[in-house]
Amino acid sequence: MELIPGGIVAPQGFKTAGVRCGIKRKRKDIALIVSDVEAVAAGVFTTNVVKAPCVISNQAYLQDGLARAIVVNAGNANACNGEQGFTDAVQMVAHTAHVLGVPHRRVLSASTGIIGTRMPMEKIVAGISDAAGLLHDGSCEDAAEAIMTTDTFQKQVAVQMTLDGKQATLGAIAKGSGMIAPNMATMLCFLTTDASIEQAVLQEMLRRICWYTFNSITVDGDTSTNDMTLILANGLCGNKPIGNLESADAREFERALYSVCLHMAKEIARDGEGATKLVEVTVQNVAVPERLAQTYATSGAELSPEQRAAFPRSVAKTIANSPLVKTALFGNDPNWGRILAAAGRAGIAFDPDQVEIALAGTTVYRQGMPTDFNGYVVSEAMKAKDVQILVDFHQPQGETATVYTCDFSYDYIKINAEYHT
Amino acid sequence: MELIPGGIVAPQGFKTAGVRCGIKRKRKDIALIVSDVEAVAAGVFTTNVVKAPCVISNQAYLQDGLARAIVVNAGNANACNGEQGFTDAVQMVAHTAHVLGVPHRRVLSASTGIIGTRMPMEKIVAGISDAAGLLHDGSCEDAAEAIMTTDTFQKQVAVQMTLDGKQATLGAIAKGSGMIAPNMATMLCFLTTDASIEQAVLQEMLRRICWYTFNSITVDGDTSTNDMTLILANGLCGNKPIGNLESADAREFERALYSVCLHMAKEIARDGEGATKLVEVTVQNVAVPERLAQTYATSGAELSPEQRAAFPRSVAKTIANSPLVKTALFGNDPNWGRILAAAGRAGIAFDPDQVEIALAGTTVYRQGMPTDFNGYVVSEAMKAKDVQILVDFHQPQGETATVYTCDFSYDYIKINAEYHT
Repeated sequence: MELIPGGIVAPQGFKTAGVRCGIKRKRKDIALIVSDVEAVAAGVFTTNVVKAPCVISNQAYLQDGLARAIVVNAGNANACNGEQGFTDAVQMVAHTAHVLGVPHRRVLSASTGIIGTRMPMEKIVAGISDAAGLLHDGSCEDAAEAIMTTDTFQKQVAVQMTLDGKQATLGAIAKGSGMIAPNMATMLCFLTTDASIEQAVLQEMLRRICWYTFNSITVDGDTSTNDMTLILANGLCGNKPIGNLESADAREFERALYSVCLHMAKEIARDGEGATKLVEVTVQNVAVPERLAQTYATSGAELSPEQRAAFPRSVAKTIANSPLVKTALFGNDPNWGRILAAAGRAGIAFDPDQVEIALAGTTVYRQGMPTDFNGYVVSEAMKAKDVQILVDFHQPQGETATVYTCDFSYDYIKINAEYHT
Repeated sequence: MELIPGGIVAPQGFKTAGVRCGIKRKRKDIALIVSDVEAVAAGVFTTNVVKAPCVISNQAYLQDGLARAIVVNAGNANACNGEQGFTDAVQMVAHTAHVLGVPHRRVLSASTGIIGTRMPMEKIVAGISDAAGLLHDGSCEDAAEAIMTTDTFQKQVAVQMTLDGKQATLGAIAKGSGMIAPNMATMLCFLTTDASIEQAVLQEMLRRICWYTFNSITVDGDTSTNDMTLILANGLCGNKPIGNLESADAREFERALYSVCLHMAKEIARDGEGATKLVEVTVQNVAVPERLAQTYATSGAELSPEQRAAFPRSVAKTIANSPLVKTALFGNDPNWGRILAAAGRAGIAFDPDQVEIALAGTTVYRQGMPTDFNGYVVSEAMKAKDVQILVDFHQPQGETATVYTCDFSYDYIKINAEYHT
């Protein structure tokens, strides 16, 4: 699908604003995203046991499946602030609801930045009021900037599709794995669409797509207390509501959602702290372990596509998270031994003699030993902005998964060791 | 227990030698460890799916439970060399058996260094012959040096104990997590003792102790294809053979084994690539998940101590492997948020408000929020050579585990990115 600019204001009936309220020294730090009409809403959240109040609040409000607005602040994650943190999160939502004139249960919220530090509520309240006065649908540059922490570039995109003969649009803004000590890499993505879709269908699609996109990126294996993806669907394009997952319109919308989320996921990996390149680790032809397959076969139950793909993905994640692999990628070193060794500790049984490894387009390992590859040529190919690692287990009826990551450079250490709490 | 020098020649009836055969440019690279008489032998090996021929060969020979010698080379791991690798491993063992005049099934072997490169067998054979002519029991400096790769210091230690009224001695040499690209961090430890102990008891004790020591260290989460710990017990101190795990002598020997292995494990963590400090991560009062505990209670089975301690250990490992935690340790940054967030993604349920975190002796997080600690004081305390992280879940009937690691510095990136395959 063709990606177009415009981000979250490309769909009809959404307005946005971004202002600087003073949590951060230089950049904008408050964003509002507002739908002209009530929108169907869905969300996917961090699996970390430690959850920020904004995550807990959104999970509660999403039980209604509807929203009008999202308020976001950068510079303070409002996590680990005890009871005060919950009070502040509620106030942020309540004030947004007040200035927009919408019920407070229709306002979702997100915070990203430093943790364990109280929110400067006076600044935030003033910032929300300012932003509400500046809402517009000309572009979403301000909002995309206002959700950034140490991201080095803005992330926004949109796509168009045809649903029920109507032109529908889906847009997104995201922020990635820049971190502010003592914080974790918070990943946020906000999506808007003017398509009409039932909440249960939207929620299931978002969950599925996140599995293959945002939940398949890894910068350093850490998971934030504040990670979330939210989508608002206001139905203004006028299509007949998408009511089940199997219709042609549902498939079209899911393709659009996948394109946008995959693009954003890659942008986030590419902008990982200190990253010099985007790395795609694909592991293919990995079979479901026999014992598990038999258990399911006996019980008559079926493994979902995600359950089947979890096996290659766990191998891909182990490779993508290996500091040895990541430093070799930074050094443009065609070090297949580290890739194979990482695969070997992922907890999946395989025959090393059957494995094939390709690095930046060249097969470097096959039949239990390295191929006769030219190290210089492969090293040069690894200097690209996008590097592919392909690991093939050659197991019958195997599954494939791709994980997106970046390399590990001196700057990662610099960013994370030199900034003091 | 008091640690003494002498290493693997401190016990009676062991000789050793270390020579340079030319696999490595400057350092010694062949070590022999020989018992004057047949010794009871036990081993614990890498769990990586990809195993080097030396690991597979030792696992086969240890079915006899007896050994006379261990031959080790550094500079080449002889892993991923296809059929040729197995032929070379067999020749290394056969030649050692020949020059020592012992059956080849009584020779264990280990290789560490570069992978995917053929062993220079002419040099290795000549080196083994040279080493055999130099065997002595004066010290084990030569052997301790000859098993090193990029370790920055030698690792050897011994302890004495009284068994059945006789003085028994246990010694060890080890090498750690220095790596040679394209290699993984191979960890090797060789132990000798003049105590008499039955093989089944020795094997079980070694397995148990490795769980709490070598299997509780982590430099970067990677596991080598060649990791192993071997012990030879020749019985020359004259004690009545230790025949079960519960006797007073068994407990005394196990304490000695634990002291030596723990010392070596810490030395290996301290000498991790680019490490500036040893970090001990202790996670305490973590209960066995209720569902699992109930299942066991219902079935009348009991969880082993290691199974119970696996829960706190998985939390400790997640913290110890977190690049964000490790870079904060390098930067002496009292960044409790990263520790808490790592704990939160370890897959163990807990109430963040009940968690307490102490860093270098100061409580920094309690009751859901940071304490009023002095960041400068804690940062200064983190500059020590040994830094403790203590995470207390405060769950009733909880278990405790400690993991040993090091910090993540610029030198880690330098060592692993700049060395080219």
